[in-house]
Amino acid sequence: MYKFIRVDMTSLSVTIGEVPEKYVGLGGRALTSGFVADEVKPTCHPLGKNNKLIFAPGLLSGTSAANSGRISVGAKSPLTGGIKESNSGGSFAQKMAKMGIKALVIEGMPAEDKFYVLKVDGNGVTIDEAPPEIIGGPGNYEALEVLNEKYGEKVGIAIAGPAGEYRLAAANISFKDPEGHMRSAGRGGLGAVMGSKKVKAIVIDDAGAAGVPIADPEKFKAAAKVFAKALLDHPVSGQALAAYGTNVLVNIINEAGGLPANNFTSGRIEHHDNISGETMNANISERGGEGKVSHGCHAGCVIRCSQWYPDKQGKFITSGFEYETIWGLGADAGIKDLDIIAYIDRAMDDVGIDSIETAVAVATAMEGGLLPWGDGEAVLDAVKQMAVPTILGRLLGTGTSAVGKACGLFRVPVVKDQAIPAYDPRPIKGIGLTYATTPMGADHTAGYCISGNILKVGGDIDPLKKEGQIAYSRAMQIGTAAIDSTGMCLFVYFGIADNPDGHQALIDMINAQYGLSLTPTDVDKLGESVLKVERAFNVEAGFNNAHDRLPEFFEYEPCAPHNSLWDFTPEEVDEVFNF
Amino acid sequence: MYKFIRVDMTSLSVTIGEVPEKYVGLGGRALTSGFVADEVKPTCHPLGKNNKLIFAPGLLSGTSAANSGRISVGAKSPLTGGIKESNSGGSFAQKMAKMGIKALVIEGMPAEDKFYVLKVDGNGVTIDEAPPEIIGGPGNYEALEVLNEKYGEKVGIAIAGPAGEYRLAAANISFKDPEGHMRSAGRGGLGAVMGSKKVKAIVIDDAGAAGVPIADPEKFKAAAKVFAKALLDHPVSGQALAAYGTNVLVNIINEAGGLPANNFTSGRIEHHDNISGETMNANISERGGEGKVSHGCHAGCVIRCSQWYPDKQGKFITSGFEYETIWGLGADAGIKDLDIIAYIDRAMDDVGIDSIETAVAVATAMEGGLLPWGDGEAVLDAVKQMAVPTILGRLLGTGTSAVGKACGLFRVPVVKDQAIPAYDPRPIKGIGLTYATTPMGADHTAGYCISGNILKVGGDIDPLKKEGQIAYSRAMQIGTAAIDSTGMCLFVYFGIADNPDGHQALIDMINAQYGLSLTPTDVDKLGESVLKVERAFNVEAGFNNAHDRLPEFFEYEPCAPHNSLWDFTPEEVDEVFNF
Repeated sequence: MYKFIRVDMTSLSVTIGEVPEKYVGLGGRALTSGFVADEVKPTCHPLGKNNKLIFAPGLLSGTSAANSGRISVGAKSPLTGGIKESNSGGSFAQKMAKMGIKALVIEGMPAEDKFYVLKVDGNGVTIDEAPPEIIGGPGNYEALEVLNEKYGEKVGIAIAGPAGEYRLAAANISFKDPEGHMRSAGRGGLGAVMGSKKVKAIVIDDAGAAGVPIADPEKFKAAAKVFAKALLDHPVSGQALAAYGTNVLVNIINEAGGLPANNFTSGRIEHHDNISGETMNANISERGGEGKVSHGCHAGCVIRCSQWYPDKQGKFITSGFEYETIWGLGADAGIKDLDIIAYIDRAMDDVGIDSIETAVAVATAMEGGLLPWGDGEAVLDAVKQMAVPTILGRLLGTGTSAVGKACGLFRVPVVKDQAIPAYDPRPIKGIGLTYATTPMGADHTAGYCISGNILKVGGDIDPLKKEGQIAYSRAMQIGTAAIDSTGMCLFVYFGIADNPDGHQALIDMINAQYGLSLTPTDVDKLGESVLKVERAFNVEAGFNNAHDRLPEFFEYEPCAPHNSLWDFTPEEVDEVFNF
Repeated sequence: MYKFIRVDMTSLSVTIGEVPEKYVGLGGRALTSGFVADEVKPTCHPLGKNNKLIFAPGLLSGTSAANSGRISVGAKSPLTGGIKESNSGGSFAQKMAKMGIKALVIEGMPAEDKFYVLKVDGNGVTIDEAPPEIIGGPGNYEALEVLNEKYGEKVGIAIAGPAGEYRLAAANISFKDPEGHMRSAGRGGLGAVMGSKKVKAIVIDDAGAAGVPIADPEKFKAAAKVFAKALLDHPVSGQALAAYGTNVLVNIINEAGGLPANNFTSGRIEHHDNISGETMNANISERGGEGKVSHGCHAGCVIRCSQWYPDKQGKFITSGFEYETIWGLGADAGIKDLDIIAYIDRAMDDVGIDSIETAVAVATAMEGGLLPWGDGEAVLDAVKQMAVPTILGRLLGTGTSAVGKACGLFRVPVVKDQAIPAYDPRPIKGIGLTYATTPMGADHTAGYCISGNILKVGGDIDPLKKEGQIAYSRAMQIGTAAIDSTGMCLFVYFGIADNPDGHQALIDMINAQYGLSLTPTDVDKLGESVLKVERAFNVEAGFNNAHDRLPEFFEYEPCAPHNSLWDFTPEEVDEVFNF
């Protein structure tokens, strides 16, 4: 029997009930978005008592399926004002699933200005006062130590950093990973929602949990084997990501002319070797560290894209050191040193702020004269100021749109007030359609058209041309919404896009676990229904088609070296959601 | 023959043409909003090259009609993202009208980072480089001296202050008044649009102008006399406003329990005597000054509400010292000293920032911990920082919504990102409907329901009840849109609301000037059509009914002393624009 847990922070009380009928067959994003659409008033203030924060493991989380350990978090976003699902690695989803917890909802808001830790275990949920030494400034690294000490090393932890406590709109929620470091549900400011509800952390202890019931274990096992093989057989998910991390993309996207530089004023940089995945790989090899190098963000990951990046003495600086962060600081903000970028990444993890939103905000602040171009030390200092917070720290932590407004700029790379990530939409047009139309605000993971446009996985579409992009972005967004509901890492796409066996194995696992007989069409329908629910929420929250537009400057500022412009008409863009 | 002037700041060229047919019968807000709807792409960036800024005198401006000298300014607002008309006193409208200039449009954006002064005279328009000594920090008081020196004391001037140069979203456009001080088109950040186009100031010299042609001078003269008498016969426009200024309202609204205090957490203050109109009047009388006391913001004003406020030595501090500013700083931000409020008002005029938006932003910043509650010296310093600008100065100058977001607050009193002014919508419900639904963002002047709710002019509606408010706000917004198109000061409402002769005289003047035979129904139709045009623009810009809502906290935080809540349903609110 699955459980549906509600924690009411107004009354500091907990209700553990059965899963409402309509949510029984859902997981991950399908569940979080369905719940938010059902129970959150679309016009509520995201930081007010009527917003609700929901954590849900995916359909396959907690099983032996490779890469199935992603946790989905949902709420109305303080950054975009729309619905938000953000997912992360770590051990949280797997522990929830093994304990039979379908969802954990945090609602209400305490009257008193005091922070709490929720402790979830086999006995239910207790609401403890947060240890005072982790409130009001100390970073996540320090806080995790305190919580591990208090609750035991083996617990799973979800935590809002100082940025979340201060309710900054780009605050993330971090999850302890198998190495004891952090993974984040980064985008959309869900850490600020957690902070507004005065929940500093959620600790989950699955000791004695029954595990996930599997209707047909043999069938599941067979499918899981095929699925894992499909992931490992693909050159991207089987080799490149482990070797170079996601940062393999610096050279690829730079070569494609789509690496936004100096606040989106060009698509190529000269200093790519300073910050590339190849350089990262060489540094890691040379510096040795503690021999961890690449690893997974959750148990059962076979792709192992995460890079464990050490300093020159081999001492850990940061992990989960991603392309988008490195791009944002290294190309968009012009910081030419990978080590200082690593320290900034660590500082962002520590303060609990989305690294994409912050990196783009930093580049925007540089254009606005608030920070010197390319000055890594200044940026590191500014990020640390979010834990004070100073006014500069607050402003950067409020995101790119806020910085752009305070600086009076028109070149502000956001959609629905969320920063555009590491792929320029002018020379890589497919991703621009995703940025423009996803209900999430600019988000490459909502429909990763880089795949067919650049990597030539799952499609072969000319990135500089409009042909085929509308249908492709639509299909990618639908497929992604379905994948985000399974608890699977998005990179499983590489194993299923061009591999019918891998694709079928994913569906077979779901069918074997739940005793169902879903077809690929059913899965597509699920993805479509998730997107429709999200979009309907956004309309009620105040969005219309005018929000499905890229910033105007993309239409008249050409992007070198291809000198391409964003040339989709509004009518064409609106075709993406015509299904 | 009327002229329609376009200044293209991209090519630094000027076109003086005939008035397009559809604008011939329009003036003021009807013209600016019609033009913006026709020529500005609703999804353009307000600070980008595709926004356009239009200045238009009202239909009656430049004539001998009392109180007809208001200038309307229009553009897409950088504060709200919607259409904006903001109007002001000063001599600009009258000079434009006398020179036969129907509208002055500024479009495009220069490539070079250099500011200009537009000089408008009988020979056309010249584009001068701005005197370097008024760029990058010096305030409007100093800049006006430089411009008077260069172009002659008699010229009219429109100027963007430092806040406008820095394109802060609450920057105003100030107009030189008959005393040589400043009046402002305050709301919605039109100064930032002017700054984005690199126009520091517009100087207008009407020497040798032909004056405004009147089709039937005798009829006009007779109607103007009746009209002026109607204004002077009413106790509000004939007496109270001259004696106490708009600040007569502190005690009235405080008594009504609708004076928002401490960032809208209560509706009444104890220290009202510190900041009231009566105190202001006593100070002015006692300190003497240069004997100017009350005066008009433009030639031909018979109401003379503006107060010339001196320091203890009788030396001028500020004028146009309005209730809403004094409320915002004195009650909402809790500054208990009228003199320091006067210095802050002067500083806001000097830096060129909307005093309502700034005062509410200041109170929000106090709740957010950025400034100490009630600390006038700290606020004065912070306002002056907008001319540097520091990051605090930038943030405050970006408005209340930006401050609320950076501080992670849910109690952020804005509608469509524009600050709610000096009348709490919980105990004065009519004004709440105007705030919620006007296309302008929260704006008391868009449909001043205080009149029938509190002052009992033009209606007698219980401010604490919902009955009658929907129709009243609708009628007030329609009437206001029409008045804003005539060049009339909004306070003429007191002379026409309960006085059929005054009302008819206003229409008679328009008919006599233009040789028309408009009826009151025609005038209402004009008001309706203006609102419909504005609303349609906003829909295209990304607004829907969800934006016609007050901040959620008004629904659940009762306002003392009446402990009233905002209790209109969304469906009821949407009825206001059902016409």
